[in-house]
Amino acid sequence: MDLPTYLAHHRNRFIEELSEFLRIPSISASSPHKADVRACAAFLAERMREAGLPKVELVETPGHPVVLGERTSAPGKPTLLFYGHYDVQPVDPLDEWISPPFEPQLRDGRLYARGSADDKGQVYLHVKALQAFLATSGDLPVNLKFLVEGEEEVGSANLEPLLRARAEELRCDGVLISDTPMFDAKTPSICVGLRGLVYFEIHVQGPRQDLHSGSYGGSVVNPANALAQIVTRLKDERGRVTVPHFYDRVKPLSAEEKRSLAALPFDPEAYREDLGVPALGGGEEGFGPLERIWARPTLDVNGLLSGYTGEGSKTIIPSRAMAKVSCRLVPNQDPGEIEEHFVRHVLELAPEGVRVEVRKLHGAHPWAEDPEGPLFQASARALERAFGRPPVFTREGGSIPIVPLFQRTFGAPCVLLGFTLPNCNAHSPNEWIPVDLYLKGIHTVAALYEELRDVRL
Amino acid sequence: MDLPTYLAHHRNRFIEELSEFLRIPSISASSPHKADVRACAAFLAERMREAGLPKVELVETPGHPVVLGERTSAPGKPTLLFYGHYDVQPVDPLDEWISPPFEPQLRDGRLYARGSADDKGQVYLHVKALQAFLATSGDLPVNLKFLVEGEEEVGSANLEPLLRARAEELRCDGVLISDTPMFDAKTPSICVGLRGLVYFEIHVQGPRQDLHSGSYGGSVVNPANALAQIVTRLKDERGRVTVPHFYDRVKPLSAEEKRSLAALPFDPEAYREDLGVPALGGGEEGFGPLERIWARPTLDVNGLLSGYTGEGSKTIIPSRAMAKVSCRLVPNQDPGEIEEHFVRHVLELAPEGVRVEVRKLHGAHPWAEDPEGPLFQASARALERAFGRPPVFTREGGSIPIVPLFQRTFGAPCVLLGFTLPNCNAHSPNEWIPVDLYLKGIHTVAALYEELRDVRL
Repeated sequence: MDLPTYLAHHRNRFIEELSEFLRIPSISASSPHKADVRACAAFLAERMREAGLPKVELVETPGHPVVLGERTSAPGKPTLLFYGHYDVQPVDPLDEWISPPFEPQLRDGRLYARGSADDKGQVYLHVKALQAFLATSGDLPVNLKFLVEGEEEVGSANLEPLLRARAEELRCDGVLISDTPMFDAKTPSICVGLRGLVYFEIHVQGPRQDLHSGSYGGSVVNPANALAQIVTRLKDERGRVTVPHFYDRVKPLSAEEKRSLAALPFDPEAYREDLGVPALGGGEEGFGPLERIWARPTLDVNGLLSGYTGEGSKTIIPSRAMAKVSCRLVPNQDPGEIEEHFVRHVLELAPEGVRVEVRKLHGAHPWAEDPEGPLFQASARALERAFGRPPVFTREGGSIPIVPLFQRTFGAPCVLLGFTLPNCNAHSPNEWIPVDLYLKGIHTVAALYEELRDVRL
Repeated sequence: MDLPTYLAHHRNRFIEELSEFLRIPSISASSPHKADVRACAAFLAERMREAGLPKVELVETPGHPVVLGERTSAPGKPTLLFYGHYDVQPVDPLDEWISPPFEPQLRDGRLYARGSADDKGQVYLHVKALQAFLATSGDLPVNLKFLVEGEEEVGSANLEPLLRARAEELRCDGVLISDTPMFDAKTPSICVGLRGLVYFEIHVQGPRQDLHSGSYGGSVVNPANALAQIVTRLKDERGRVTVPHFYDRVKPLSAEEKRSLAALPFDPEAYREDLGVPALGGGEEGFGPLERIWARPTLDVNGLLSGYTGEGSKTIIPSRAMAKVSCRLVPNQDPGEIEEHFVRHVLELAPEGVRVEVRKLHGAHPWAEDPEGPLFQASARALERAFGRPPVFTREGGSIPIVPLFQRTFGAPCVLLGFTLPNCNAHSPNEWIPVDLYLKGIHTVAALYEELRDVRL
């Protein structure tokens, strides 16, 4: 039986098995669900064993367990590490779900359940891909390792220690992840870049207490006005961030990357309409929306608070004002360097008459891979076999800190193959996965093992 | 017995009587105190009758009663209307009071109690001044009316209808108010100007919901950044408000007013130290702090709110942002005109990509009097008789909407004679009135009746 026939034959069973996986409420953030999370890990371990991983282990951590598995029967061949997570987001607001989050329901070719897209559906398709390959093509032509954690939705705090403790065992030549969406339903995609992040709080302190704006207005610098001024001056009229050296290490897109980006079926008007804004904007002059999101750094206010914010009027000069401000970073910006330049610049922008403090909250490295590498080319061929058309190379504007972590830990390329869509409601009510993409995902991954038969990574 | 001897003789009784007045918890904002507020009005009415107002009336309103009184025994002579309020602010935080707010206590020449300074002490000194005058000088050489309301601390909503309904009965040639502080303990003061006010909320709407700052950052105008930009552009580098026509009607201080202002014993360094700021500022270049507060308009942010303001980092582009912004106005700016110019200007400053709405919340007219008028000159002579030195003419940066209301209603000058100090903790715990200023207030007001004997208003 060839692979497509096998997949068609087992379609219903693959959906039913995934539904069983989805029924376990593995909400990692909820301590009442601790036993469910563990049961979910045990369920997955059992399925991995059945699918053809002879060695499977439930690894204890200070939090939820990690499921490891391996089939290393191809000495001298490349080793792939598949990473995913079996934990899911909480389900609130529950009353917005059309069918209950842990009772999977198939409607119009969509399988609805919490975790269907993020990430249990995309984990399970790798399990089934292995089984399908072994049933149709003989033994694996590569070595395969699985690492599926249960704490991705709560920050993956125990992942880095595990990678360090098991470095030898987890060593690999390439990492496979399915936790990003496709560009759109028709366009198979490989994500080759993620942005990094630096996140700050700017605190402006004025008078020691709120003052009567009549008795004092005009004689004292208002910290809220001062904060607005600082925030405004962090970007220039052309939308560029004014922090010195901010752009020093920014790697522009190559001509080839620009061409491939311009060829994507992106409709700015539909995008604008969907956001409900009168016009797009907010980025640097001279770049289109996709390039601004994928390949240019940004600066955004995430929160503002000062003075009186209740109903009606209170005539005060606030004693302090606070802004949360973050920058998305692109290769090869360094979060540590940018933090230093940012803090220094804000303090320079601070007007006389107030005290300004900048607190660093959070950082993440940007990441990008060269899509010309052999793992990417093999993945592209596998996608073309499953979808009947070649994939596009995309980036994501967000940050997935584990991706640069794998890159740093193993020095191996990371390939992000997603089989969901941007509107699959990950983290929201009525999460779903398109059944045909779930099956095409199984097809793609099994095809990828085949494509790697004679490739050196 | 002459006036000073009479005052010395009755000193203790005057303090004891005021204490009795202060013991009644006339908190107008608190409905459980409704009966106390009424009892306080009745107490005051009785004392006004005893002091020598033959006609006293408790006027019902939809809220708390107003106490009216009159002694119009000087046909052909000027008529003075005294305005004050017998209601007080709430007392929270109660545990910061050294002695209970409604158990008046004398410590170091200060009488501590809620309402001692604002405004019961300053009302009662007018009652005692009448009594002292009648006891020492025969009948009044002027006609005198009292209007003491019980809702000043909750917005005086029923005052304007009363003024309209009783316009004939309340007609006067001059209004006396004691509800402002003196410049300092040694300097008798007449306040001849108040600022007006316009108050707005600026609402900036961006995308229809909060967006992931990674997935969208750079492609959409951030409403918090846009708001910061609008607020910043409302003032220029020299601290001037950029709203067109904002300064058109601003009446500069005369050379004489500037000289008198410069002569005041104002210490900017002590003022800065007291506010706890590294430097003064926030007003227009080219004007000192007192002129900025008293005679220049301002623009201040009173509140800011957008996006995520809790602990830690949340990576969103907020869907909206809000600022409360108000301007203090000076003679002869018109709140209605300024509102229109302000709204138009904000809408012009709004960047493409967001929707901006400006809501008008509140307005108050500025007010200033010519200190050369006969009522002011008579008041100045009376203050000099009580204090042994001539008064200074001050202004207040705040707004007292009833003052321009009296001016509009009666077309009569308003004289603001204060007998408290800026640090008397009005509206705060441990409110107090200096006993010697209370007595000098009685002396001043009785002397003022005398000074008006041959004056035409």
